[in-house]
Amino acid sequence: MAAGERALIVGAGAGLSAALARRCAREGMSVVLAARDTTKLAALAEETGAVTIACDASRAEEVERLFAALDAGGGAGADRLDLVVYNASGRARGPVTELDPAAVDAAIRVTAFGGFLVAQQAALRMVRQGSGTILFTGASASVKGYPRSSSFAMGKFALRGLAQSLARELQPQNIHVGHIVIDGGIGRAGDPRANERGPDGLLDPDAIAETYLQLHRQPRSAWAWEIELRPWIENF
Amino acid sequence: MAAGERALIVGAGAGLSAALARRCAREGMSVVLAARDTTKLAALAEETGAVTIACDASRAEEVERLFAALDAGGGAGADRLDLVVYNASGRARGPVTELDPAAVDAAIRVTAFGGFLVAQQAALRMVRQGSGTILFTGASASVKGYPRSSSFAMGKFALRGLAQSLARELQPQNIHVGHIVIDGGIGRAGDPRANERGPDGLLDPDAIAETYLQLHRQPRSAWAWEIELRPWIENF
Amino acid sequence: MAAGERALIVGAGAGLSAALARRCAREGMSVVLAARDTTKLAALAEETGAVTIACDASRAEEVERLFAALDAGGGAGADRLDLVVYNASGRARGPVTELDPAAVDAAIRVTAFGGFLVAQQAALRMVRQGSGTILFTGASASVKGYPRSSSFAMGKFALRGLAQSLARELQPQNIHVGHIVIDGGIGRAGDPRANERGPDGLLDPDAIAETYLQLHRQPRSAWAWEIELRPWIENF
Amino acid sequence: MAAGERALIVGAGAGLSAALARRCAREGMSVVLAARDTTKLAALAEETGAVTIACDASRAEEVERLFAALDAGGGAGADRLDLVVYNASGRARGPVTELDPAAVDAAIRVTAFGGFLVAQQAALRMVRQGSGTILFTGASASVKGYPRSSSFAMGKFALRGLAQSLARELQPQNIHVGHIVIDGGIGRAGDPRANERGPDGLLDPDAIAETYLQLHRQPRSAWAWEIELRPWIENF
Repeated sequence: MAAGERALIVGAGAGLSAALARRCAREGMSVVLAARDTTKLAALAEETGAVTIACDASRAEEVERLFAALDAGGGAGADRLDLVVYNASGRARGPVTELDPAAVDAAIRVTAFGGFLVAQQAALRMVRQGSGTILFTGASASVKGYPRSSSFAMGKFALRGLAQSLARELQPQNIHVGHIVIDGGIGRAGDPRANERGPDGLLDPDAIAETYLQLHRQPRSAWAWEIELRPWIENF
Repeated sequence: MAAGERALIVGAGAGLSAALARRCAREGMSVVLAARDTTKLAALAEETGAVTIACDASRAEEVERLFAALDAGGGAGADRLDLVVYNASGRARGPVTELDPAAVDAAIRVTAFGGFLVAQQAALRMVRQGSGTILFTGASASVKGYPRSSSFAMGKFALRGLAQSLARELQPQNIHVGHIVIDGGIGRAGDPRANERGPDGLLDPDAIAETYLQLHRQPRSAWAWEIELRPWIENF
Repeated sequence: MAAGERALIVGAGAGLSAALARRCAREGMSVVLAARDTTKLAALAEETGAVTIACDASRAEEVERLFAALDAGGGAGADRLDLVVYNASGRARGPVTELDPAAVDAAIRVTAFGGFLVAQQAALRMVRQGSGTILFTGASASVKGYPRSSSFAMGKFALRGLAQSLARELQPQNIHVGHIVIDGGIGRAGDPRANERGPDGLLDPDAIAETYLQLHRQPRSAWAWEIELRPWIENF
Repeated sequence: MAAGERALIVGAGAGLSAALARRCAREGMSVVLAARDTTKLAALAEETGAVTIACDASRAEEVERLFAALDAGGGAGADRLDLVVYNASGRARGPVTELDPAAVDAAIRVTAFGGFLVAQQAALRMVRQGSGTILFTGASASVKGYPRSSSFAMGKFALRGLAQSLARELQPQNIHVGHIVIDGGIGRAGDPRANERGPDGLLDPDAIAETYLQLHRQPRSAWAWEIELRPWIENF
């Protein structure tokens, strides 16, 4: 089933996206990593055999170009798109009275509008193909609007609304749509918070990636559209 | 208490905003109506004594200009801002694969980003003043993402995230923030749906406006941040 | 409209129920107070002209007897039942491993099953009458299950499920069903927490009662089924 | 890790519980099935090597006896308890005005109070052991109160409140608590609804069981406490 599968991970960074790339590669999938700045992805690409493509996901024309490159890409899986993960996000912190409207606009665009752009291009291909999985990465802010964090609340709530709308729209077309609420800090190698949190006090990116893969593999008679993940000691 | 109070209603139209303007005027408040196109508001302004100001709420510079005009406005209440209601919204309908990204962008901007811009300017004044009420008008789509309606889900979810974040941030500064989920059709005079729905089957704008006023008048020891309103016969 | 109206308040105590009794009486309604122990209600009954009836609301036969007494009661409003409020609740505190199952059972019965029994008897009369309002008093625990509070979470979640089911079932029969989430401490005269919380830091029972009355008075084209109330400074 | 693990499934029937028993057995776990009536479980016990114990989970003394039998049980895993699943539920259908209070009481007791009793006994052992997983089976009614279904709404909302409270209480003690919302019909062999629903239109019990196992296996740095499962074509 996995043979010939292809995954696209948008907003690829050092934590979750890298774990996802490794997990997908281990599954035998061919992997494409898209990020604004791909220079930092060289080692990961080398390790996982992934292709990297530079793309500002908040811009319609760049997202179209990204998918055109996917379509044109030679090699195994070039004609397929099985799993798309949207990880990109941005925020402007501070009291509402002090935020720069342009920064708030930019945060919403990368967190939510980019998710729409990527999902739209993915849906165009997956509807034709008759199958696929689209996963959106949420945060605590997806379901709770925190003070001094209005831009992040707007972006992440919007992304969740998109995911829920698309689940209702696309699932009957055999496209699985999922939203994962990451409620807690993601542990990266050498994370200074690791000591104060104690063992397994930060989310292990590999553990998160495993859940994403499980969602992708769920039989369609029993699909989940949303899962919240948090460390065992997390307050919620 | 109401003497000298001033209300700003953004996104003023023929239904809810008109009812709000009348209800506020009856309360003795001075009313300002802001809308992209104010030509249709002449009769309402005449009736309620309201001032009208043209403003595209999705543009930061226009919202700043709107509030500068409020600050400069002579007459009673020119130095106060007691109640701000954000009603504007937009949407692009259709399957995700057929939506025009520019239209989706525009929908999110008027539905959610404009809410941020208006709330920010309101908060600047209300924090200084030490009091005030900011109310956001939501829809069924604020809490449920419907298929073929991804842009509206994004905009309305985002607005709800904004409202929740600001409730947590501004309420301890004595600024009441509320989000009203209008779950059902609003009945306007001569609405063709009125007959098939039967008596009181559409939301009466005056009934909605009464709830907004009640929220504005709630003592701060018992504030509601969210209320869902729907007709008695509505499925939910 | 209020002339001849009759209200029943179940689980009547010194805080919210007393405020509700006063508010209803001021509205010209005739008031019946039901509680397990009515001896403490003498002064309140004197003040509001209310009738008191002893009733353990968790027992079907006692609830039937309560409503039979209502039916038989002479005087104004004896043939009507316009507003029923269910306030009773109980809980067993502690780690799940240390709770006495009998105490948990009793807590669920008074918090939720009693709500069912009272709502059932109220519905029998209101369906016949063609109108009425049934309000259930919830708590923070209605929407969030706190640790070491499993019995209260069970009771209050269950009561909310009841309220939501009955809203869907009875509202199309012109019976308004509401659930009020009281999120914070209710201030009683001389409450020792009042000082540390600061001004309006505890919910004023009169402010809560006002919201209950507003729900009862909402026109049916715009009914709310749930409202959360909390002090302006409350964390949530 | 699975070697020597022991699972207890309460409310064992022909659909989900049988699939869970098979899945756990395949994992090398020793399985105990508890149900009011164990006569129908003979073939399943034979197939999976499971032990069956008769137990009315809504009665404290029977649940204590069940766990005492577990403690005393010889053979592999008799000193362990790794996974407990609570599946039992009951309901009384009909308009609120027509329900028999005794039947409503019984429904709440088997759906929710039994979940408490089983979780309490499980927690006593898992806290001592320092690990374990407790999973509760919910339904659409866990998060939405349907009309004419007040007893089921009460029971399933209460069970969800219990699960959420215990997740907050027990997870920091290394006990994973999960709540699975089954939103849709579960397909059993020869189910007459299968044809009208089309392929994969009913939840496959084996697919559900796989998700339960995945929850049991999740690393504690990334635990989910709730998952909703539904068929791809389900309205929600």
